[in-house]
Amino acid sequence: MKHKFKCLNCQTTINPDPHITVCQQKGCKYEAFEIVYTNRDSNTSHEIPIPLSNNLNLINLGQGNTPIIRLNSISSDFELNIFAKLEYMNPTGSFKDRGSSMMISALKEFGISEIVEDSSGNAGASISAYSAYSKIQSHIFVPENAPKNKISQIELYGSEVHKIPGPRDNSTFAAIEYSNKNSIPYSSHNLSPYFLEGTKSFGYEVINFFNQNKLHHILFPVGNGSLLIGSYKAYTEIGNNINIPKHHAIQTENIRPIVNMYNNLNWSVDDGLPTIANGIAILNPPRKIQATNVVNFTNGTAITVSDEQIIEWQIKLAQKEGVFAELTSCAIFAGLEKLISTKIIKNQETVLLPITGFGLKDPPKSFNQ
Amino acid sequence: MKHKFKCLNCQTTINPDPHITVCQQKGCKYEAFEIVYTNRDSNTSHEIPIPLSNNLNLINLGQGNTPIIRLNSISSDFELNIFAKLEYMNPTGSFKDRGSSMMISALKEFGISEIVEDSSGNAGASISAYSAYSKIQSHIFVPENAPKNKISQIELYGSEVHKIPGPRDNSTFAAIEYSNKNSIPYSSHNLSPYFLEGTKSFGYEVINFFNQNKLHHILFPVGNGSLLIGSYKAYTEIGNNINIPKHHAIQTENIRPIVNMYNNLNWSVDDGLPTIANGIAILNPPRKIQATNVVNFTNGTAITVSDEQIIEWQIKLAQKEGVFAELTSCAIFAGLEKLISTKIIKNQETVLLPITGFGLKDPPKSFNQ
Repeated sequence: MKHKFKCLNCQTTINPDPHITVCQQKGCKYEAFEIVYTNRDSNTSHEIPIPLSNNLNLINLGQGNTPIIRLNSISSDFELNIFAKLEYMNPTGSFKDRGSSMMISALKEFGISEIVEDSSGNAGASISAYSAYSKIQSHIFVPENAPKNKISQIELYGSEVHKIPGPRDNSTFAAIEYSNKNSIPYSSHNLSPYFLEGTKSFGYEVINFFNQNKLHHILFPVGNGSLLIGSYKAYTEIGNNINIPKHHAIQTENIRPIVNMYNNLNWSVDDGLPTIANGIAILNPPRKIQATNVVNFTNGTAITVSDEQIIEWQIKLAQKEGVFAELTSCAIFAGLEKLISTKIIKNQETVLLPITGFGLKDPPKSFNQ
Repeated sequence: MKHKFKCLNCQTTINPDPHITVCQQKGCKYEAFEIVYTNRDSNTSHEIPIPLSNNLNLINLGQGNTPIIRLNSISSDFELNIFAKLEYMNPTGSFKDRGSSMMISALKEFGISEIVEDSSGNAGASISAYSAYSKIQSHIFVPENAPKNKISQIELYGSEVHKIPGPRDNSTFAAIEYSNKNSIPYSSHNLSPYFLEGTKSFGYEVINFFNQNKLHHILFPVGNGSLLIGSYKAYTEIGNNINIPKHHAIQTENIRPIVNMYNNLNWSVDDGLPTIANGIAILNPPRKIQATNVVNFTNGTAITVSDEQIIEWQIKLAQKEGVFAELTSCAIFAGLEKLISTKIIKNQETVLLPITGFGLKDPPKSFNQ
């Protein structure tokens, strides 16, 4: 479908270009883009608009259409109606496949044959897999302390992995430097408007599943917020007649740029401390304003949880519901408890929890003993 | 649907009983059962008959309906039309979830609250997860040398894991002994006719996907053969008008009871040697006759591959197609090469390869370095 890049800040639209990642307007530098469609027919508004010239070019490694199951024990414990969307049941084991499939398909349409990306792990594995399938050479910059399984998975699909010391953001700086030096497009999943556009399918599937049944809340583990933003975008594309669930952003106490922004508190990258929730340990998420806006627009909240609660919930979730989630994904269960205790989630309401990554990606300590 | 247990050997039918795993008829002891339906309406033959009194009792952890994708690079390399069915995209990361969901649902209908099982890993994890969801206490007996990740996954869901030294079959003996001693039903996934009945959904999905397009071959990594048998059962239930693809059984050179039976060669459990394909390292599969029959009935073949070929294919598959399979699952790619070189698979034919387990279940050595 015909589309443009629109700057989230100055609203300027430009023609799509895989070599441009942030707005170049004066006073607006480094602001990310989103996709807008220029030929959308309102008669077909229930069809998902996607930013490819031919829908058949969307690479299919089996992404999307993940199951939604009811969590009976936890529903009963909390007197709620709780569902989980098993986003880890994507081809590389995380929801990132929704974004990667769209991003790599778009890059392929542009004729790109080599890319640079930085990732804490799951996005890297996902982009590596889709690049392999598409014969695109990929360079993935990862924090050297990312979980071993995640790094090995990226390597296995054939990407060249560059391990960077220090906090997560160092990988970003190193990737950009490498991109500039070697004139290879910097295809950051956090910046790419195509990646974001891919995550939208999550929202469409949720809307279809719940249909006329009211869904009150969705809780997202938020690093850069791509799933949260994509979900909201689906609701806005569907139109005015639909009730939008509250989109809640869950971060950790140690890394909480979006929670601080939501609360009008300052956040500097130097404020960050280590957290076991490596998938959301992003000190300076480029889409933080966009993510915070979604929380506000949907009357959601942004809250923090502790590493200890996350670790407890990984075991609890497996033993109560038979669902094995990676640590990062368990943050939303700790968030659920907090939102219940603060009465933001009320008795008998319906709640959806996306399980973003598979447990074997980042298993409990017992696995390495 | 109303059903009976039918002995595969003497054809005697008995009423379903979760405490009976093998036929008790004189001269027939230790032969496994299959499910037969006593009230199947031929008008509804396209509906999948399942052995539950109420279809709504089928536990849903999101199993089944796995994607089928085209493997473009390998298709082109071999001048074939090759598809993969991503069976690892089941809730616990392997096709076993099809079987476990049916078995645990049936046991729940019988009011069973505690079970004993033996597994090389994937079935154990699967049964542990479904047991957790259903509040059934499970004891899983595993070979102590099974992959660390697999054992840890079983433990995580809350099963009591019993690690047994020696070859795979020792776990079976220990499980049976424990079952007898403690009067807890022995719910072996290899013997349970309910487990087998659950794997049938694979075949129905394949039939729906290929519809009028001819599928010539399906290659299965075979331990006990439950997926191969289940697939064939779907084809026979659908009826006479459908073309049945050749069902090929792939085993390793070191453990090949079904390949030997297919070739009318002797096999004793003492003939077994270690193999990295731990998921199919079953020295004395209880359904070996049934599995060999399926190979013969469909004009398939049973062949062996080497551990070295399997290891190579794990990397090749990831780098050519972006698919990360566990080692055991890669046996069928080595088998594919062999069947092409022996002209059993011919130019331009259509081949389906079920990817039975996720790569993180049993990753390459590089992951532990």
